[in-house]
Amino acid sequence: MTTYSQHYPDDFHLHLRRGDLLKAVIGQSAYQFARGLIMPNTVPPILNAAFVDNYFVEIRLALRNLRLPNFKPLFAIKLNHRTTPETIREAINVGAVAGKVYPIGVTTNSDDGVSDFESMAPVFAAMEKWGMVLCLHGEKPGEFCLDREVEFLPTLDCLAKNFPKLRIVLEHISTAKAVERVQSLPNTVAATITAHHLLLTLDDVIGGKLRPHNFCLPIAKRPKDRAAVRMAAISGNPKFFFGSDSAPHLKGDKECAEGCAGCYTAPVAMPLLVQIFERMNALDKLENFTSKFGADFYHLPLNEGTLVLEKRPWTVPKEINGVVPFLAGETMEWSFACE
Amino acid sequence: MTTYSQHYPDDFHLHLRRGDLLKAVIGQSAYQFARGLIMPNTVPPILNAAFVDNYFVEIRLALRNLRLPNFKPLFAIKLNHRTTPETIREAINVGAVAGKVYPIGVTTNSDDGVSDFESMAPVFAAMEKWGMVLCLHGEKPGEFCLDREVEFLPTLDCLAKNFPKLRIVLEHISTAKAVERVQSLPNTVAATITAHHLLLTLDDVIGGKLRPHNFCLPIAKRPKDRAAVRMAAISGNPKFFFGSDSAPHLKGDKECAEGCAGCYTAPVAMPLLVQIFERMNALDKLENFTSKFGADFYHLPLNEGTLVLEKRPWTVPKEINGVVPFLAGETMEWSFACE
Repeated sequence: MTTYSQHYPDDFHLHLRRGDLLKAVIGQSAYQFARGLIMPNTVPPILNAAFVDNYFVEIRLALRNLRLPNFKPLFAIKLNHRTTPETIREAINVGAVAGKVYPIGVTTNSDDGVSDFESMAPVFAAMEKWGMVLCLHGEKPGEFCLDREVEFLPTLDCLAKNFPKLRIVLEHISTAKAVERVQSLPNTVAATITAHHLLLTLDDVIGGKLRPHNFCLPIAKRPKDRAAVRMAAISGNPKFFFGSDSAPHLKGDKECAEGCAGCYTAPVAMPLLVQIFERMNALDKLENFTSKFGADFYHLPLNEGTLVLEKRPWTVPKEINGVVPFLAGETMEWSFACE
Repeated sequence: MTTYSQHYPDDFHLHLRRGDLLKAVIGQSAYQFARGLIMPNTVPPILNAAFVDNYFVEIRLALRNLRLPNFKPLFAIKLNHRTTPETIREAINVGAVAGKVYPIGVTTNSDDGVSDFESMAPVFAAMEKWGMVLCLHGEKPGEFCLDREVEFLPTLDCLAKNFPKLRIVLEHISTAKAVERVQSLPNTVAATITAHHLLLTLDDVIGGKLRPHNFCLPIAKRPKDRAAVRMAAISGNPKFFFGSDSAPHLKGDKECAEGCAGCYTAPVAMPLLVQIFERMNALDKLENFTSKFGADFYHLPLNEGTLVLEKRPWTVPKEINGVVPFLAGETMEWSFACE
């Protein structure tokens, strides 16, 4: 049987939510990833050290119950206009590795987001000084949906220039222009790429039937944008690494009159990545993309242990614990190796 | 009380479906429009004179049961590669006024659509000769969703050039480029404009939450496209007239994993148009847009009788007979006058 193996991968952009939904989804990530950077836009949000502590306990408990104790959650706090340099210091002290900015209103639970980047300068300066990574949902509020990411790029330029030692991640890039900009900025600026942005264009969301389980923000764009994102992922450029943005919502919150944004890709993440990279004749680039470049950027060691996949087809379930996974009902070419 | 009145309007692009759904929706159109051009992409499709006869009986019966016998359905047949000049002649003989082309796969029930326009030349020639209007779903199959309408325009050019006396309607235009092209082509080429394309941009479909009840094909485009469509509607140019493309689907066929395209605008059509035209300070242009230009193009007399609306708010129901109407739950400024 054909197999693929690599060091255990990391997911540098992961939504686990809280409570019952967290318990329902965390196993899918913990099974295949060694670490995940857990996004802080929960309800209530992860705003500071105390919230990180609390969230850590919840996650550890869920992992223990699933007998998946080896998965290591990495924490980001949500930055907003109440964040102070002291908030940053305290969050670092409890192990948070990143601060995430959601511009106001651009995605799920971002109504308390940032409306004025300039006023955040003291916070960014503290992060720069103390080595916390700045993660950006890179979309400009109020712009037409397809232009929001590109319109955000001047803000990225400013941040990179004004805080030259601040490590910055432009999350879930979806456009050719964002790829180009990240390439051209200094090495302090990197980007995460999701599995679904490697697969989808806007046609897969609205091109025939309306497909809520392919609906995410930033929205998937044109074929040329997808091509650019794919080329970045297989380029071997360490600025580009994997972050799934796996974003579970209950089925009824997706298939309704006002559907939530987010693709629940965790259940298919590594099998899908292997499939995509194989089709691009770039399987040799996948390990660095998922295991090394992100770890290096975050100043973390390479994971120990080996993840093995086998070329053996399986069908993605229609629903897992009340959540419809990405590619539900479709056949994947690669399976996790039986233990 | 402020009122608005005009000759009874026409809807030159209307989906009524068949069976229970037809009975559920026809009253909403028959109440406010004098005539409607009924689209033939039903299941089974309206392919020829016999189907028109049959469909006419079904519609008349439904209207009689609703005590709305004055609404006059106008019929289009669906053209495909089995249509012959004889089909056209027979359809005209039973009163069909139009033939509709759905390029293959571009919208609801178009899998049997046209893949090769050139081979349809004898049919178009027959329509030109005998005075049947050609209605076009103007999107090119296989193109990226946002480009399909613009990529179809060369086909429109060819048809206008090759059949100089054939009256052609480019249906539900959604882009600035389509507006410009229709303006520049001879007077044999006109276009319908929907209420929802006057209101929506792509932001209203995918810009925040996913809104299946705003999902239609052609998809709503950029603000500049909407602006161009609006300017065409209020321009007083007789090439542009109203066709709602009201397209009912049961709630469960919209709010699901693969949602159908179409906005059920019939219940709000004239109140919404009055509201939009009033906000554009163009209420004086609405009567020609809805009552005269289309009738003239189709060589039909102006409708008798007067439709009166009052400036009196009402809330669009969340659901009407199992179908979620466009703008469900929102407040409209204009109501139909009480009789």
